[in-house]
Amino acid sequence: MGKSKRVAVLGAGSWGTALALVLGDNDHEVRLWTHNPSQANLINQTRKNDRYLPGTLLPDRLTAYSDLSAAIQDTELIVFAVPTKAMREVAHKVEEVNTGPKTVVHVSKGIEPDTHLRISQIIEQILSPETMKDLVVLSGPSHAEEVVKRHPTTVTSSSHNLKAAQEVQDLFMNKNFRVYTNSDVVGVEIGAALKNIIALAAGITDGLGYGDNAKAALITRGLAEIARLGTTLGANPLTFSGLTGIGDLIVTCTSVHSRNWRAGNMLGKGKKLDEVLDEMGMVVEGVRTTKAAYQLAHKYEVSMPITQALHRVLFHDVEPKEAVDQLMSRMKTHEMEDLVDILGEQQETEGD
Amino acid sequence: MGKSKRVAVLGAGSWGTALALVLGDNDHEVRLWTHNPSQANLINQTRKNDRYLPGTLLPDRLTAYSDLSAAIQDTELIVFAVPTKAMREVAHKVEEVNTGPKTVVHVSKGIEPDTHLRISQIIEQILSPETMKDLVVLSGPSHAEEVVKRHPTTVTSSSHNLKAAQEVQDLFMNKNFRVYTNSDVVGVEIGAALKNIIALAAGITDGLGYGDNAKAALITRGLAEIARLGTTLGANPLTFSGLTGIGDLIVTCTSVHSRNWRAGNMLGKGKKLDEVLDEMGMVVEGVRTTKAAYQLAHKYEVSMPITQALHRVLFHDVEPKEAVDQLMSRMKTHEMEDLVDILGEQQETEGD
Repeated sequence: MGKSKRVAVLGAGSWGTALALVLGDNDHEVRLWTHNPSQANLINQTRKNDRYLPGTLLPDRLTAYSDLSAAIQDTELIVFAVPTKAMREVAHKVEEVNTGPKTVVHVSKGIEPDTHLRISQIIEQILSPETMKDLVVLSGPSHAEEVVKRHPTTVTSSSHNLKAAQEVQDLFMNKNFRVYTNSDVVGVEIGAALKNIIALAAGITDGLGYGDNAKAALITRGLAEIARLGTTLGANPLTFSGLTGIGDLIVTCTSVHSRNWRAGNMLGKGKKLDEVLDEMGMVVEGVRTTKAAYQLAHKYEVSMPITQALHRVLFHDVEPKEAVDQLMSRMKTHEMEDLVDILGEQQETEGD
Repeated sequence: MGKSKRVAVLGAGSWGTALALVLGDNDHEVRLWTHNPSQANLINQTRKNDRYLPGTLLPDRLTAYSDLSAAIQDTELIVFAVPTKAMREVAHKVEEVNTGPKTVVHVSKGIEPDTHLRISQIIEQILSPETMKDLVVLSGPSHAEEVVKRHPTTVTSSSHNLKAAQEVQDLFMNKNFRVYTNSDVVGVEIGAALKNIIALAAGITDGLGYGDNAKAALITRGLAEIARLGTTLGANPLTFSGLTGIGDLIVTCTSVHSRNWRAGNMLGKGKKLDEVLDEMGMVVEGVRTTKAAYQLAHKYEVSMPITQALHRVLFHDVEPKEAVDQLMSRMKTHEMEDLVDILGEQQETEGD
């Protein structure tokens, strides 16, 4: 554990709060920002964030803020933990306040529809070098509910600048929260974003009552199509075999904690998308990401049968059972044909 | 679906019985052999195998035999579905009977301790060319309990001879049971065998109450160490990203149907190995495989921290919590160091 730092965590959802708790455990001074003043007051008064993490007592060195300028003033690092939809707005606010160049971390998982930008690309568009020194992505198989119970968790700190990745590794690392460095930002972000698509699909097969054999096949083929798009965008194929690839994919597809799985599960049981989103009352990143990945697959002519099937279910009212049965029967005959595509494909770097 | 064939399935445990059911569904004449005459009688009288698959009605074209010679007489294919421990004995019996060269399929998952032979290597040692024309491995994420419910399942048919793999593909393929071909026999068998080690370890972390984040990390690192040993033995690294690699690993580590996971779970809750094996009353392949893989890792100087930690728990009375905590804290700092090992390592083919 390094020396104590001042850190702002922007976004007081379950993941932002859990990471703020880890930082508090590590004796850093944490400012947890939310745009909602009454949520900030409640956190400061009760020492809890009961809406997102019921029962969890927050560390003493954590203070909630609703004034962004006050929250980031004098901090050494900023952690963005807001939904991808809010990313642009919050980044613009941070740029306006501008309290000097610092290391910026983001922990969000998604791709922007229409622009097809990864989260780090959105942040780089908005934050100037005067505001942001380095950008680091923190990602991996990590349900907030388990992190706040101090259960063992491992994540990856990824940056083009290894020194910055190590700074963030030191910041978060402790006995229960293990952090590894990785320099493949594209691979980490693509894996993190696209696993939500497969989790939605896995929820659907579970909702249809199809069992673990079908789900294992779906996850396996899902990893192949994530890697296929990822390598086309310039990722290192090995990253998809790591914590932010297969690790995060497994935890999101097999855990009841996963929102995307839960949303898919309701779809599989016959609910319509609007009903599901109403009932969840939380952001289901996989829905937006399906749209973005579908567009990317089309643009780069990458075969993504699961993403395409889910797109038909979500946006073209195709019955889940019809889409899944079609998917199961259309796979190639020789397994390697699919797998060789991943490593054999010409790599085109999107540039970032 | 091809033309109707006569097929002997040797071994009337849950997996042999489920595969016999698939063959019956495909209108093949199936002889299900068990060494136990009263089990054979009971199956023929009740049309069920209630000890292993309670409630499942078996197809009309399935007959149980306890006479091996009668069971394999006039058949076109033989499917070995016996525990790895019984493989030698049953193969010797088949060789004695010798009813002409036929395609042999095996569906077992393990490596023999001390000899370090894969199942196909054991069979090739014993069956002469007069008994066996071709050898095919059928493997993948497939709980018997789901296959007999006709839930969607996908597996891999693997052989050095693609024609033989395709013959077996045609034999089993139907609407619910999807079969893909693959020519990497070493990779398929190593993945199938070693996933049971990781499933035991995953059961332990679950038994200790460590949660899904820890399990996802364990599965991810487990896949890396399986691939590391597998490629050293001559496997294609891509195979570990397929159905018999990550697919089977996921289903075995996350499903309550898995015996190896269940055995590990009891160990994590404080039971001793002897008690666990008594209580299970079924073969737990992972225990023997841990011994074999541990020996192989030593012989080829391959780093297999999970296998080594489990070996200490199973055979040297180390407390599960101590072994797991040590494991979680000893991983390398830079994620890619571990992953690059897989593809970067000099490949030494063991020969088969």
